[in-house]
Parts: sequence; structure tokens; C-alpha cells
Amino acid sequence: MGLMSEALTQILIPLAAIIGIGFALLQWVLVSKIRVSSGSKLESEYNNKLIEEDEQEEGIDSDDVVAKCADIQKAISQGATSFLFTEYKYLGIFMVVFGAIIFLFLGSVKSFSTESEPCTFNKENICKPALANAFFTTIAFLLGGLTSALSGFLGMKIATYANARTTLEARKSIGKAFITAFRSGAVMGFLLAANGLLVLYISINLFKLYYGDDWEGLYESITGYGLGGSSMALFGRVGGGIYTKAADVGADLVGKVERNIPEDDPRNPAVIADNVGDNVGDIAGMGSDLFGSYAESSCAALFVASISSIGSNHDYSAMSYPLIISSMGILICLITTLIATDMFEIKNVTEIEPSLKRQLLISTVLMTVGIAFVNFFALPSEFTIFDFGSEKVVKNWHLFFCVSIGLWAGLVIGYTTEYYTSSAYSPVQEVADSCKTGAATNVIFGLALGYKSVIIPIFAIAASIYVSFSLAAMYGIAVAALGMLSTIATGLAIDAYGPISDNAGGIAEMAGMSHSIRERTDALDAAGNTTAAIGKGFAIGSAALVSLALFGAYVSRAGIKTVDVLSPKVFIGLIVGAMLPYWFSAMTMKSVGSAALKMVEEVRRQFNSIPGLMEGTAKPDYATCVKISTDASLKEMIPPGALVMLTPLIAGTFFGVETLAGVLAGSLVSGVQVAISASNTGGSWDNAKKYIEAGATEHARSLGPKGSDAHKAAVIGDTVGDPLKDTSGPSLNILIKLMAVESLVFAPFFATHGGLLFKLL
Amino acid sequence: MGLMSEALTQILIPLAAIIGIGFALLQWVLVSKIRVSSGSKLESEYNNKLIEEDEQEEGIDSDDVVAKCADIQKAISQGATSFLFTEYKYLGIFMVVFGAIIFLFLGSVKSFSTESEPCTFNKENICKPALANAFFTTIAFLLGGLTSALSGFLGMKIATYANARTTLEARKSIGKAFITAFRSGAVMGFLLAANGLLVLYISINLFKLYYGDDWEGLYESITGYGLGGSSMALFGRVGGGIYTKAADVGADLVGKVERNIPEDDPRNPAVIADNVGDNVGDIAGMGSDLFGSYAESSCAALFVASISSIGSNHDYSAMSYPLIISSMGILICLITTLIATDMFEIKNVTEIEPSLKRQLLISTVLMTVGIAFVNFFALPSEFTIFDFGSEKVVKNWHLFFCVSIGLWAGLVIGYTTEYYTSSAYSPVQEVADSCKTGAATNVIFGLALGYKSVIIPIFAIAASIYVSFSLAAMYGIAVAALGMLSTIATGLAIDAYGPISDNAGGIAEMAGMSHSIRERTDALDAAGNTTAAIGKGFAIGSAALVSLALFGAYVSRAGIKTVDVLSPKVFIGLIVGAMLPYWFSAMTMKSVGSAALKMVEEVRRQFNSIPGLMEGTAKPDYATCVKISTDASLKEMIPPGALVMLTPLIAGTFFGVETLAGVLAGSLVSGVQVAISASNTGGSWDNAKKYIEAGATEHARSLGPKGSDAHKAAVIGDTVGDPLKDTSGPSLNILIKLMAVESLVFAPFFATHGGLLFKLL
Repeated sequence: MGLMSEALTQILIPLAAIIGIGFALLQWVLVSKIRVSSGSKLESEYNNKLIEEDEQEEGIDSDDVVAKCADIQKAISQGATSFLFTEYKYLGIFMVVFGAIIFLFLGSVKSFSTESEPCTFNKENICKPALANAFFTTIAFLLGGLTSALSGFLGMKIATYANARTTLEARKSIGKAFITAFRSGAVMGFLLAANGLLVLYISINLFKLYYGDDWEGLYESITGYGLGGSSMALFGRVGGGIYTKAADVGADLVGKVERNIPEDDPRNPAVIADNVGDNVGDIAGMGSDLFGSYAESSCAALFVASISSIGSNHDYSAMSYPLIISSMGILICLITTLIATDMFEIKNVTEIEPSLKRQLLISTVLMTVGIAFVNFFALPSEFTIFDFGSEKVVKNWHLFFCVSIGLWAGLVIGYTTEYYTSSAYSPVQEVADSCKTGAATNVIFGLALGYKSVIIPIFAIAASIYVSFSLAAMYGIAVAALGMLSTIATGLAIDAYGPISDNAGGIAEMAGMSHSIRERTDALDAAGNTTAAIGKGFAIGSAALVSLALFGAYVSRAGIKTVDVLSPKVFIGLIVGAMLPYWFSAMTMKSVGSAALKMVEEVRRQFNSIPGLMEGTAKPDYATCVKISTDASLKEMIPPGALVMLTPLIAGTFFGVETLAGVLAGSLVSGVQVAISASNTGGSWDNAKKYIEAGATEHARSLGPKGSDAHKAAVIGDTVGDPLKDTSGPSLNILIKLMAVESLVFAPFFATHGGLLFKLL
Repeated sequence: MGLMSEALTQILIPLAAIIGIGFALLQWVLVSKIRVSSGSKLESEYNNKLIEEDEQEEGIDSDDVVAKCADIQKAISQGATSFLFTEYKYLGIFMVVFGAIIFLFLGSVKSFSTESEPCTFNKENICKPALANAFFTTIAFLLGGLTSALSGFLGMKIATYANARTTLEARKSIGKAFITAFRSGAVMGFLLAANGLLVLYISINLFKLYYGDDWEGLYESITGYGLGGSSMALFGRVGGGIYTKAADVGADLVGKVERNIPEDDPRNPAVIADNVGDNVGDIAGMGSDLFGSYAESSCAALFVASISSIGSNHDYSAMSYPLIISSMGILICLITTLIATDMFEIKNVTEIEPSLKRQLLISTVLMTVGIAFVNFFALPSEFTIFDFGSEKVVKNWHLFFCVSIGLWAGLVIGYTTEYYTSSAYSPVQEVADSCKTGAATNVIFGLALGYKSVIIPIFAIAASIYVSFSLAAMYGIAVAALGMLSTIATGLAIDAYGPISDNAGGIAEMAGMSHSIRERTDALDAAGNTTAAIGKGFAIGSAALVSLALFGAYVSRAGIKTVDVLSPKVFIGLIVGAMLPYWFSAMTMKSVGSAALKMVEEVRRQFNSIPGLMEGTAKPDYATCVKISTDASLKEMIPPGALVMLTPLIAGTFFGVETLAGVLAGSLVSGVQVAISASNTGGSWDNAKKYIEAGATEHARSLGPKGSDAHKAAVIGDTVGDPLKDTSGPSLNILIKLMAVESLVFAPFFATHGGLLFKLL
């Protein structure tokens, strides 16, 4: 047994969660001090602040502009809320149906018998009936889905609350705008991390009331939580991704390319849909995604621990190790955020990216200490884990290396992503340079950059896998994933900062603010593109580890001893699994393309049929564009969603557990490459375009300005990158995780009834 | 023992090879009847033919145009010959150095001892010393390299001999032009297939003089032949691919996009380099590639057979089964070709593709019968093979299914590729349609098409793997690959037809022939794009099977019993292996991009500095452009080549045989997807552009004509696709095959001395 008593553990975990939520609320209060009220006078406190500023106030600073910002913000917020409600309505139906499937499949394992049985792993113990597991898995599934939806919704609410405030602060200084966007990101980060932890903690304790000492059954049921979280995240990512990019691509193709009006120009009918999209796709989708990763890695770690000596000894503190690590993570991120918001001030555009990078570094260093601390107190000095048929002795300090290497691999991935997607370095500058010879070379160089950017992350992931796998088998992988996600609050804060700044820029343009303010928000946005790419890098890296951990848990649960590539059953799974990311990407990219074409037609129609639209005397019909995006995303998310949800069921039921293991391994090793390259290619094109637009260096000016041939080529690259970086790429994380967690949940069924086709032959 | 005696086998194999060579020469004679001599009068026989034609003769038909064609052909031929000589000079040095490495590594396995030893698999027998194996492997390696170079060179010679002849025949009718191009392709196909078989047959018999009854050692040494073939093919593909696409992209970017002059316009300084590129890249590269596949699958099958009961019983006919299948393939292809050239006549553009597809179908159906025939006569009714530590009984008819399913999977892949890359079907038409909204949607739709096009081929490959693997373990896979390649003569003929037609079109343009002739050559070329894509599909599909067979042979030779994904050593290999195709593609695409940029600068310089160039009064400096392509390709092929050649050596030496097994499996399952999607994406863009240019349907005319916005967008897609379909994509076949065959050759070394890093830890 470790040094920490069960009682202390029972206090500390919820305490950390509550501190996290409290901190998020505090940040919210700070952000809310910036007043955005349509029609109201600027408050005195606000004016006082302005007077305190040394810098000169730029642009229009009247009640009028504040009112305009408020109106736009309201329109965006309403659009996003209404989309999410519609989406969740459909997803609610899906959750109920799929919940019923889970219950029926798992209940059928022992023919719906209500008798208790010997446990699967500790055969001398008696476990609850399979029917109970089916029931509680279903409940956990619904809870996970609910928490995921809540996470996405809260994130969106915060982001739409913060965007206009960031715009208004940009009038004062770049530093103030940055802090506003960053604080709002932090609200989202902390709420999600704390919320995920709290719901999981409460669920475990409630389930325990029924399960008592049957930890095998308890933690097997809890895996439903991960499945629920990721199912919602899948549709959130895909639906949101199609929504945002259909609007974005459609708006750009007519507005920027044909009509030659700036991005986010209020005359563009798709502009509100575009801004709504940023919030439902990049914010709500990302929130659900990372929550899903967090839930799944926790579930994978808990399940593996439950069938180890920790589980059979009923060592509650050691069992809760994954939750304690997450609790520590919240506290560490809190300190890190305080450093960012209170110790440094951003005075210059060039300080933004280094500051965000510093955040990553600080949280990683502090967390390493935190892990050592947790390991020392929460874990016994050694324990044995189940290692695919054999037993493995794991020492306390082994786990320290497992968690730490995951954490540091995350940092390496983050920094690499930054290098390949920030215009401060040569890769993006080369892509920008290739625009000189047109769009074709730009696309070729961008694709090559994306391909190249996978090298270091893959080596980082491979190193983490090797170390953690060797030291603690699949438990090692699961806690390595948790390590990477332990600083999720900071990661999400940095990531959410991106779309918030993007929206802030949009609002500045739409409200007709001065050029210099737009320049500031552009700079914030360019940094935001990079941070969004970093966030995606984290999401992908953690997804790879999580998925491998789930794969390990699945293999254990399905009773497979080896997954031998030299077996034909496994190999065909491997090669078909490696194909799935392509199939999935083909679907999502084409969905974006088709929806964008519809959007283009509508925008063209409005420009042609509404008199005075180009002159700015008439208002466009924003609602129709919003409706096009909404309908397209809801309709188009079904086929890719079905592909991901049905593949494990079909493979497991008809081809059996071994082929399914091959499918999971194949989709993991192939999907992670496609996802990283897609995300970085898109990020680099976006920033190459921004680099030319900003014209900050002599080289950039030689390519620009806006409207030059090189810039037009850059816009084409950016448009191609949109579905890659915001729809296909990030959805692939969920593909690889979700298939793994679904296989884990259905493992008892496949192990009993699976492989029909091979049985017939 | 089978029904066929050793003596009969010894006669039939070389006989088939000689018939193949004879048939190739006959086709050559037929092609050579078309006279292309600068300055000479048209011969009477030629004039007679013209009179026999019912159609009206179109365009300029004077001595002048024939002389012009002859000059252009000469320039292309000289450029290609000089490039290949330069390339082979460097590759000669590489072959010698790498040959020395092979000798030293393999010699060191038993410390250069000259003592005979007990065999590895049949321990009761005495085998030749490891040093002898090292020596003969090196010899086989050099022979393979030489044969590969010869194959590429011959193909190029034939293609450059045929292109102007095809142009001249196009003046008479589309059918005559088609037959000329197709016959020339057949010359190449039959020469390569027969040549590869003959050299392999002779080598085995010569090696047997030394090895006698030590078949284990004999066939282990023969694997060097596959390695030699593929090493040359790698550099041929990569070097040729960079050459051709640097010239093509560079020529298009300035000529078509900036100067608005047609493709292949003689005023474009890069036009000769572009046409040379078609011959050194698409023809010589493809020839080396498919020869490599053929050599490797034969070697893999022979090696696996040598350690089976066939080998230990010294059943020569059964042992030669792979060679007999290839012999039968040559005869079947001969019949198929006669059907194409003598039974059907092409009268209309729309008949070209169906005719080529029919060729594939006929050869596949006939070959299925041929396989049954060979199986009945050459094989014993049953035998046992080595199945990773256990023994497996294989029946005669099992192998029939193995070979046949490979053959038919090839057909499915060919037909699928045609569906996705021919403008006759909806996928390419949709891509063309997306050009309406610009280059960005074109690129998005093209990428999505490529991703989607992997689905059916992967299922076809998976099915072949499952069936052949289940029936006859790794021997099944190897003969399935041979089955797919058994109709290689027809496949190559169809494939080579593409670049020959492309060149013919270029010559028509350069010689200033009439618009209607150019239309005919364009139609031939459009069909050629599809057939080239089909050829690439074959190359990739067979590469996947070959690589898996080699993987199996490697695993057997290295003494690995299982390749367990649940072992960390294997898993890190798997994920890093899956990354390699991306790394490799990043290198090759960027090489093309950079070389194209240099080409653009030179072409621009010439247009700006040579007075009268645009007006056609001054001649451009073709030689400088040829030099740029040559230098770039020779320089840029080194890093990707090194990546492929060094990875197995590093992985095997430092991480050991298991990690290397993971790397091979990972690069196989990931690389095949990247290769198929890249090749089909590129093919579809090229044909979407041609579809708009040809304007054959109402839909196509609504997008065109040349120079319209949609056409410009299509040109951008085509340019992006160039390096994808002709450099990165096809080189990836070789990546996956070559790493596998290299691992097989070095397996004795890795098994003895490998895994240094893990031994140290």
C-alpha cells in the first residue's frame, strides 16, 4: 500500500476538481468585467482604464462600435447555440439507440442471466452478473456523452462570450487583448478538465455502491464513460468541422476570390456562418475531443489497474492514481496560468508565441515534479500487472518515467508543431516563397511540409511507447497518455485562444474598426493558428497513446495472448485498418467540398440578387447561409460517423477479435500520420497566407501585398488546407480512439459470439 | 513428384523466354516499317498504305514534317540516352560499393570461415559456408542490377523509337496510331518479362554448378538478384521521376500559366527536357520497377520453396514452379497481344480504353486456365512448407487458388484504377466540375478522390492475402504476387503505351501538325493517362504482395516465430515504419518542387533574354533545361535513396530483427495507401484537365474551353498531381519492396549480430 490513505484520496480528488472549477469561474469574472452591451454607455470603470493606458487609443471608440460588436457577438452566439441544440437533439437520439445496442450486446454475453459468476481475471472471486455490467456500462456511456456535450457547449459559450471583448480590448493594447483571449481559453480549459474529473470521480463512487468489492466489473463498466465521451466527440468534430469549413471555404471562394472583398467583410452573406463555425467546430469540437481523450485514457488506465494486483488488493489510493495525476495536473496548470496572466505582460506581437510556448514549458517542468510527488505518496513501492497472459512487476519509479515521458513527448510534439506551422520559421516561409510560382507549387510545398512534420512527433511517440510499454506494459501506455493530457487545462487554454482571436478579428472587421486594430487582431490570430495547430498536435499525440492503451485493454479483455502479424486474420485487419483513415478523410473532405459548393451558390445568388449588397447599403441574408451549413453538417456527419461506429462491430462480430485487433493497430499507425500531416499542412498554408498579408519582413513584402499573384496563390492553399486541418485531420484522432474504446466495451461480446464468418468457413 | 520431368522443365523455361524475345523482335520489325528518316523521301510502301486508307489525309504531309519529327525524335532519344548513361555511371559506383557491403556483412556472419556447416533449416544436411553465400549473393545482386538497368534502357530505346512513328501514323487514322503505340509497348513488355526470366534461369543453373544439392544456400544467394533489381529500380524511379516532373512542372508553370502557349510548344525551352523525362521516368523507371517486382516475387517464392519439402526432396520441377508460371504468362500474353493487334481494329477514340481493358480481361481469363495447367503438371499432389516454426501441408489445388486470386486481384485493381482515373466515369467528371469554383475545390475533390480510390484495391489485396496466406502461408503470398505479375508483358505493354502516346502528342505539336492530328494524339494520350494509372495500380498491388512475401521470407530466415504487435519492440517498428512513406514523399515532392523552381527561373530567363523566342523566330536553348533536370535528379535522388537503403540496416543492426519486422509491416500497410491515393489523385487531375480541354460532352464544354477559369484551375490541379503520380507515388512501391528484400538478404547478419542497442541497455 502507498502512503496516502483512502480517506485522503477521497478528499483530494474532488477538492482539486472544485478548485479547478472555482479558478475557471474567477477567470470568467475577470473577463466579464469588460462590458459589451448594445446601446449602453461605456461604464466609468472602463473609461478609467482607458485613461490609465499610456498608448494612444486607435480607431473608432464610440458607443456605436461597442453596440455593433455586441450585436455581432449576439448573432454569433445565437447561431452557435441554436446549431449545438439541433446537433445535440439528433445526437441524443443516437445516444439512446446506441446505449440500447450496448445493453443488448453486452447483456447477451451470458444470455441476460442475473446470476453472479466467477470473475474473468481473478477466478477465485465472485463478480456481479454480466447483465449488471451491461446496465452500468450503458449508464456510464450516457454520462460520458452528457459530459462531453456539456464540455463542448460550455466551451462554445465562453468563446462567444469572449470574442467581442477581445476585440474591444485590442483597441487598448495587444497585451490586453491577448490576456482576454487567453483568460477565456483558461476558463474553458479548467472547466473541462475539472468537470471531466469530477463526473468520473462521482460515477465511480456511485457505481461502487452497487459493485462493492467487484472492481473488475466496476471498472469494466466505467469504460462506457470513455465510449460515450468519444462518440459525442466524433460527431461534434465531424459535424462542427463540416459546418465551419463549408462556411469558411464558401465565404472565401466568393468573397475573397471573386468579389475581392476582405475576409470577414460584413457584406459577405456567409460571414456569420463562418464565425459561428469557428465556435462550434474549433471550440466545441476540440473541447469534446480532448475531453474524450482524457476520459478514455483514464478509463483505460483504471481498467488495466483493476485487473492488476492493485485491483485484487483493493488499494483504493493506488487504484485512483490516474485520477490523482489529473488532480495534480489541474493544480499545476493553475499555477502556470497565474504566471502567464500576472507575471508577464505582452507588449509586442512577437512576444505572443514565445509566451504561449513558455506556458507549455513551465507546465511541463512543474508537472514533472508533481508526478514524482504523486508517485511517492499514492503508489505502493511495487505491484504486479497483467501483461497479456503473464505477470509483470512494476515499481513505483517505473511509473514516474511512464507518465513523464508522455508529458515530455507532448511538449516535443507541441514545439515541433509550432516550428512547422509558425511563420517565424523557415518551413512556412518556404511555403510562402513557393507562392511566387503560383498555387501549384504552394500546394506541393505545403503537402511536403505536412509529410515532413510527422517525423519528429512519431519518434517522440515511439520513444514514449517503448519506454512506458517496457516498464509497465499497457498500464504504462495508459498513464503515459494521462501524462500527456495532465496539462490539458493549459493545452486547452492555449488552443481555445486561437479561435477566440480569430473571431475577435472577424468582429473587428465587421464592426468597421480601424486598420491598426485589425492588424493587432490579425497578429493575435496568426499566433492563434499556430496554437490551434499545437493543440491539434497534442490531441493527436495523446490520441495515439490513448488508443494504444485502449487497444491493450481490449486485447486483455478479449483474452488475446498475441497479436501476430504473421497470422492472416491479423494481417488483413492491419492493412484494412490502415486504409480506414483514407476512407474517412475522403468522406469528410468531400462533404466539406460539396457543402462549400452549395454555400458558394447561395452567396453568389445573394450578391447577384440583392441590390446594394456590394455597396454596403443592403444587409445580406445571413440566416440562409447558417441554415446551409447546419443542414449540410447534420446530414454529412452520418456516413463518416457510421463508418467509425460500425467498423469495430462488423469486424468483431464477423471476423473476430484477432482481425479487430489488427484493424485497431492498422488504423492507429496509419491514422496518426494522416492526422498530423493534414493538420500541419493546413496550419502552414494558413500562416503562409497571413505571413504574406502581414508583410512584416522584406521577404514577405516582396511576395505581397494582399491581392498580388503570390497572395492569390496563398489563398488557394489556405482554402485547400481548411478541410484538412479543421475537418479531416482532427476527426481522425477520434476515429482511432473511438474504434479502440468501442472494441474494449464490446470485447466481452466479441470474445463470446464474435468471428461468425470464420466459424462458418 | 509432379508429372513434369526435370529435363522437360529445363527445356520449357528457356524456350518460353526465347519465344518471348522473338515475339518482341517481331513486333519491333513491324513498328520499324514506319519510316522516320530526316531528309529522305517517303517510301513507296508507305505511300501505298496511305492510298489504301479510306479516310482523308489530314494536316501537313510533306517530307518536311517527317524530317521535323525525325529531328525531334532524335533530340529526345539523345537526351534520354545521355541521361541514362550518366545515371547508370553513378549507380554503377553505388552497386559496387553496396555489393561490397553485402559481401562484408554476410561474410561476417560466420567470421569469413570457409568451412561447410549444417544447414539452417534441414539440420541433418551439410550446406556451403556462409562466405560462399556472401559471395554468390553479391554476384546475384550485381546481375539483378545489370538486368534492371538493361530493362530500363531497352524500354526507353523502344519508346523513343516509337513516339515519332506513332505521330506519323496518327495522320492516317487513330487505329493505326494506336496499334503502333501498343505494339511498341508490347516490345518492351515481352523483352522485359522474357529477359528477367532468362537471366534468373541461367543464374540459378550456373550457381547450381557450385551449390549442387545445397538448395538452401543456392536460393538464399539468389535473393540478391531481387535486391539488385530493386535497388536500381529505386534510383531509376526516384531519379527519373524527379527529372520528368521538374521539367514538366517547370515547363507548364511558365509556358501554360504565364505565357499562355500550349503544352509541348516548341518555343518552350523546357519542352525537350519534358519529353525526355517521359521516357526516363515513366518508361525506364516503370520498366525497372516492374522488373524488380517480378525478380523479387520469384526470389521470395524460390527461397520459401527451398526450405519446404520441395527443397529437401530436390524436386526440380516443383521448385521451378514460380519460373514455369512466368513462362506460361509469357505465352498467354503473346496470345492476348495477337488478339489485340490482329483481331480487333480501333476506329474511334472511344474504343481505346475498352480495348485496353479487354486486353486485361482476356489475359486474366486465359492465364487462369494456364495456371491450372501448370499446377497439374509441375507440382506434386501435396507437399509441406515451413510456416514460422511449424509445418503446413499444401495441396496442388491450394496453390491454384493462391496464384489465381493474385491474378484476379490485379484485374480488380486495374479496373478500379480505371474507374477512378478515366474521364469516362463520374469521379473524374466531378473533379472537373469542381473546377468551376476554382483551384482550391479542385484540389480538395482530387485529394478526396485519391483517398477514396484505395478502398477497393485494399479489400482486393486483403482478400488475396487472406486466401493465399491461409492456404499456403508465405509461399501462398509469394505465388499470389507472381500470379498478379504473370501477365506482366501485357500490363507493361498497356502501361508503356501511355508515355509513348504522350510523346507522340508532343512531337505532333512541336512539328506543327494540324489541329485534328493533335486531337487524335490527345485522345490517345488521355487513354494513356488512364493506362499509366492502371500500370501503377498493378505495380502497387504487386508490390504489396511481393513485399509481404519477402517479409515472410525474411521472418523465416531471421528465425522469428511471431511478430507480436503487443511487444514494444515490434510496435515502435510498426509506427515508425508507417511514418517512412511520409518522410520519403516529403523528400521527393520537395525535390520536384525545388527543381521545378530552378527550371521556371531558367525558362523565364530564356523568354526574357532571347529575342524572337515568343514569335518563334529564334530557337530556345533546350540543352540548359535538360542539364537542370539532369543535375537536379542526380543530386536529389540521394537523400530518399539513402533513407530507403539505410533504414533496414540501421533498424536491424541497432534495434534487431523484431523491430525491423515491425518497420517492414508498418511501411507496407501505410505505404500502399499513400502510393495508391497519390497515383490516382494525380491521374484524375490530369484527366479532368484533358476532359475540359477535349470538350467531348456538353458538361465538358460548359467548363471549357482551354484558357477558361475552370481550365486554369484544372491546370493547377494537374501540376500538383505531377509529382504525386509520377514521383512520390510510384517510388513508394519500391520503398516497401526494397526494404523487405534488403532485410531478407541481410537477415543472416541481423540474426547473428543485430539489436546492438537493446543488447547494450
